[in-house]
Amino acid sequence: MKSEYVVIGLGRFGMSVAKTLIQNGHEVLAIDKDEHTVQEISSDATYAVQIDSTDEMALEQLGIHKYAHAIVGIGEDLQASILTTLLLKEMEVGRITAKAKDEHHGKVLSKIGADHVIFPERDMGKRLGNLLSSNNLIDYLELSVDYNMEEIRAPRGMGGKTILELDLNRKYGCIIIAIKDEFEKVNISPNANDLIREGDILMIVGKHQAIQKLHKDYTKH
Amino acid sequence: MKSEYVVIGLGRFGMSVAKTLIQNGHEVLAIDKDEHTVQEISSDATYAVQIDSTDEMALEQLGIHKYAHAIVGIGEDLQASILTTLLLKEMEVGRITAKAKDEHHGKVLSKIGADHVIFPERDMGKRLGNLLSSNNLIDYLELSVDYNMEEIRAPRGMGGKTILELDLNRKYGCIIIAIKDEFEKVNISPNANDLIREGDILMIVGKHQAIQKLHKDYTKH
Ligand SMILES: Nc1ncnc2c1ncn2[C@@H]1O[C@H](COP(=O)(O)OP(=O)(O)OP(=O)(O)O)[C@@H](O)[C@H]1O
Ligand SMILES: Nc1ncnc2c1ncn2[C@@H]1O[C@H](COP(=O)(O)OP(=O)(O)OP(=O)(O)O)[C@@H](O)[C@H]1O
Ligand SMILES: [Ca+2]
Ligand SMILES: [Ca+2]
Ligand SMILES: [Ca+2]
Ligand SMILES: [Ca+2]
Repeated sequence: MKSEYVVIGLGRFGMSVAKTLIQNGHEVLAIDKDEHTVQEISSDATYAVQIDSTDEMALEQLGIHKYAHAIVGIGEDLQASILTTLLLKEMEVGRITAKAKDEHHGKVLSKIGADHVIFPERDMGKRLGNLLSSNNLIDYLELSVDYNMEEIRAPRGMGGKTILELDLNRKYGCIIIAIKDEFEKVNISPNANDLIREGDILMIVGKHQAIQKLHKDYTKH
Repeated sequence: MKSEYVVIGLGRFGMSVAKTLIQNGHEVLAIDKDEHTVQEISSDATYAVQIDSTDEMALEQLGIHKYAHAIVGIGEDLQASILTTLLLKEMEVGRITAKAKDEHHGKVLSKIGADHVIFPERDMGKRLGNLLSSNNLIDYLELSVDYNMEEIRAPRGMGGKTILELDLNRKYGCIIIAIKDEFEKVNISPNANDLIREGDILMIVGKHQAIQKLHKDYTKH
């Protein structure tokens, strides 16, 4: 049996990954070249060690090959990120997830063996940009190229109407999959005669344009 | 009428916010103290200028008070992030969204007038940590303290069963709100007699523990 996770590079991102894994009950080996950073997590992590991860010997002595999953959170030092990923691959760690600065960096990481490349800053930036762009959107998740699941606040025109009366499915190809009221009470998969109140938070699945359109239409009412 | 967005600090995060806003058709004033960074976005942004945003005169000359929304993407230079936010507030920009390094930084930003403080690295780290923690989870969105919407791959035991036969609502308090097949075709709000195939991607609303439980149960079958 492989041990669980090794997180290398405890910046804001790597530290958060490591702490979440620990909170979820996993074994985590946490690595950073900076002593203070390592100290910050040492009481929580299964092991926390201060080494430079481009130091092959040091990595080997930690028995890196025994780990099922490595996350490389090094971001700005391209060379360190790439060399670390290369060493992890050579040592046959289970899976490698590596953070990239930009597309170019990402391609290199994939080529040398990262199983999964992530762009946390770019993705969160895109997310914020999209949330700011539509003044009705509270949160969203892309379900496919076409479909989103979006949270919007029920506009005035919807207040006092039932799911059946609104009939969003026929009119917009959208489905209300949950309603959250002002007390955060969630009604999942509401019935045809459940009532919407103005200001309720609606979780809707549909095409982004269609959800925008229905929001606009019911705001005008 | 206020102009639209000003994005200050075009690191990986700020650059992505600015580019997404531009793609969505908004006017964006993009600011960074680094010349090369400004050049990278100058052909896309409505205006792109190289100034130090802690320079009050320079900011004022840009007519910052006319903007409806400012996003501060400066991350590592605490002093610059705080001073910039303070100046924006004094100049009465519409709304301020500011990126913070950690809790402490976030508190200071709120106190001096940021309307919204965000922690992109921490949030994406938490997200990856949660995705890695459960080996069945593909993507997820927190709908409330209790409920998630989660994407999972239909385990073997579900293959060939209908929504009605599975009856996840009664057994687990969970609802399948959409099914995505191997061709990325999405069936939203499936009917009682729609069939699940092993490997389909299911979008389920329910409590995280309940979704984990049902996944485990149907994996054993
Ligand atoms: N060779 C190395 N060995 C071990 N740790 C390293 C190495 N190089 C960098 N690190 C550590 O990785 C962490 C993250 O790196 P860096 O700050 O460059 O990335 P970042 O993208 O700015 O991070 P974040 O945005 O997550 O804060 C830092 O704590 C740094 O000390
Ligand atoms: N005083 C300032 N005026 C204008 N721009 C600034 C100022 N200080 C920093 N910036 C710019 O802000 C951008 C982001 O800052 P920094 O790299 O410190 O944050 P970061 O959290 O590491 O960013 P990211 O993770 O998004 O890449 C950089 O491009 C930097 O040049
Ligand atoms: Ca850093
Ligand atoms: Ca960062
Ligand atoms: Ca998805
Ligand atoms: Ca940086």
